Amino acid sequence: MVVELVSVGTELLLGNIVNTNASFLAEKCAALGLACYYQTVVGDNEERLIDTLKLALSRSDVVILCGGLGPTPDDLTKETAAKVMQMPLVEDIYTKKRIEEYFKNSQWKVIPDNNWKQAFVPKGAKVVDNNNGTAPGIIMEKNEKVVILLPGPPNELIPMFNQGIAPYLNSLQPEIIYSKMVKLVGIGESQVADEISDLIENQSNPTIATYAKTGEVHLRITAKAKDEESAKKLIKPMVKELKQRFGVNIYSTKEEETLEAATVALLQKYNLSLTTAESCTGGLLSGRLVNVPGVSKVLKQGFITYSDKAKRKLLDVNKSTLKMYGAVSEETVKEMAKGGIFATDSDICLAVTGIAGPDGGTAEKPVGLVYIGCYIKDKIFVKKYEFKGNREKIREYAVVRALDLLRRCILEQYS
Amino acid sequence: MVVELVSVGTELLLGNIVNTNASFLAEKCAALGLACYYQTVVGDNEERLIDTLKLALSRSDVVILCGGLGPTPDDLTKETAAKVMQMPLVEDIYTKKRIEEYFKNSQWKVIPDNNWKQAFVPKGAKVVDNNNGTAPGIIMEKNEKVVILLPGPPNELIPMFNQGIAPYLNSLQPEIIYSKMVKLVGIGESQVADEISDLIENQSNPTIATYAKTGEVHLRITAKAKDEESAKKLIKPMVKELKQRFGVNIYSTKEEETLEAATVALLQKYNLSLTTAESCTGGLLSGRLVNVPGVSKVLKQGFITYSDKAKRKLLDVNKSTLKMYGAVSEETVKEMAKGGIFATDSDICLAVTGIAGPDGGTAEKPVGLVYIGCYIKDKIFVKKYEFKGNREKIREYAVVRALDLLRRCILEQYS
Repeated sequence: MVVELVSVGTELLLGNIVNTNASFLAEKCAALGLACYYQTVVGDNEERLIDTLKLALSRSDVVILCGGLGPTPDDLTKETAAKVMQMPLVEDIYTKKRIEEYFKNSQWKVIPDNNWKQAFVPKGAKVVDNNNGTAPGIIMEKNEKVVILLPGPPNELIPMFNQGIAPYLNSLQPEIIYSKMVKLVGIGESQVADEISDLIENQSNPTIATYAKTGEVHLRITAKAKDEESAKKLIKPMVKELKQRFGVNIYSTKEEETLEAATVALLQKYNLSLTTAESCTGGLLSGRLVNVPGVSKVLKQGFITYSDKAKRKLLDVNKSTLKMYGAVSEETVKEMAKGGIFATDSDICLAVTGIAGPDGGTAEKPVGLVYIGCYIKDKIFVKKYEFKGNREKIREYAVVRALDLLRRCILEQYS
Repeated sequence: MVVELVSVGTELLLGNIVNTNASFLAEKCAALGLACYYQTVVGDNEERLIDTLKLALSRSDVVILCGGLGPTPDDLTKETAAKVMQMPLVEDIYTKKRIEEYFKNSQWKVIPDNNWKQAFVPKGAKVVDNNNGTAPGIIMEKNEKVVILLPGPPNELIPMFNQGIAPYLNSLQPEIIYSKMVKLVGIGESQVADEISDLIENQSNPTIATYAKTGEVHLRITAKAKDEESAKKLIKPMVKELKQRFGVNIYSTKEEETLEAATVALLQKYNLSLTTAESCTGGLLSGRLVNVPGVSKVLKQGFITYSDKAKRKLLDVNKSTLKMYGAVSEETVKEMAKGGIFATDSDICLAVTGIAGPDGGTAEKPVGLVYIGCYIKDKIFVKKYEFKGNREKIREYAVVRALDLLRRCILEQYS
């Protein structure tokens, strides 16, 4: 089955916002086993929207339009799609009530007149609940084609797709598609590809798709079967095989779990407190950890020691160490990690020092040189890296590798 | 003149990467006064690429294709575009030499056979230098239509567009387009719109376009004229008018200057050192400051004090203050800022405490409540905010407002 994505919004055509909806929907559709050959962006313009939708319907089975479902007159995705599908708009009592409820629970209380427009739905269409806004999702079926309308704001679109649209798309297919993520860190994409080349060559059902993220590799295992139960049975031995091949390189098999969440979960599991001591990452490591709700139970404090003086004063790094080996050295990162432990009463200290550039590099210590140290159970583990890329990329890689070192150290020392 | 953007790459159709090239090119084209009605994403597939390019040429004057210029056989954007434009590929000696040079200066030294493919150029096309990679940019002109090919990697595409393509597009138009950015912070989008409604209503040349970013509003003033000199003359009084209306709310009029860069520039100008003391932002404020190369001259260190204990130990916040007013209070943020100064010998301390959620909010202190304190010249300035949004958004707003408070305090106390 072929799906096509159409994003509607003049703000996209003007480059005001980045189209993250398209990449979200594309990845989800791929995971559902749907082929996608085109994505289009078009403005809030009836004529061009009609042309775009007609073209999409001529070459695809399912067209997903997102955006342009708001209450103002310039939002015309629903009106236009209803026209193209020849399904007139009628007031939907259920949606009207839901909009009333939504406003009753909001800070506004009073419902703007405009919003009643959102209670109109193409006759015969399915309505999909929006738990985070007023515009409902809409599914129109006619002449073996499907048009799906989704609201543009990602915080409305994402949960609506996951809860209401994905199961619907799965129900359209003769076989169900089920997939599972295996997330790896600390191993390169090409090495992963090499180590699973036999699995990929011989794959039929399930299949493996590789996604490279900054410092991470995600493998999506997808199976087709008559029901979820059977699909899961097909996937299970493949996940087991990958676990055997990649072992500790796998940090999660949960779809939504991030590296920082998996790392914080380990700290919580073993009831360990953490301190960070950051030089070149300047707070990004700690900032990434506090993405995780509830991190305050394990992360009490952190140090940003950008200057030599701060390293000495806050982390008690020896003046002679800095002089002899420099701020970016194995010796300094060790003393930073140790100092972080002594300055607090944490169980673990994770320290980072490096040269993020663009200046400050030398032949001996080039831009991208980063040392990461982890003090845990009275031992210190140090890793040395030479990252490629600009200032931002080098620091991003350093954060990922620091989280990975922490994760591995906890597993080694506590599990 | 109408431009259309076509992004080529199966990785986009699979949702493997987000299409930031499209938003970059869209914003740049809008700034050049070009209308854009469609953006398309298509895979590395000859047939569909031909259809897409033909359709784009039928409705637009200029088609910009990006991606698919790599050395491997699946990269076929150039071959396909040459076919559609009926301009056969011929070896370009100049490009061949440039590729040789590129490899000589790289870490690889040896040129892979594949790469010679990149020295072939459609006959009669203009070649645009790529200073960050091997694939050249290409401009094809025929039958009053223009097709432009750009490499997909943003670090190649962005400088190539700015240096080689933007001036070319400008040269196609009877009048030159010149624009200038005025960047505001600490003032809402609707308030900005209200205060310039008269200017927008009466605008003809120059025009003003509003772009809302997280916590910021950017105004792009665009003028058309026979040459850059004349366009600049049209823009100058408008910038002056905006400066009069918005005063200190404007943090920069430089296209590429970020809020953190403008703030660091102020610290450098007055030779001031800064310490950060972060609770709910957990390192993100400091992490954003260290985006700026050379920040180490003014930012020596910072504290992440997530727990009450850390606030007491590292920043000497009083136990009684925390007990009486709570960690998220005006009193606590004041003591954090003061404590940061005493713990270091910095000139300024910027402190943030708040409730980022999703838990921890109460009726009195809801999720989103954030206090920001700035200790400067023996005075403390405090701002209280109630931000809306999820955990990530609340922390992003807090960082922007903290940078803004710092900027305003420096201007008030030192200029």
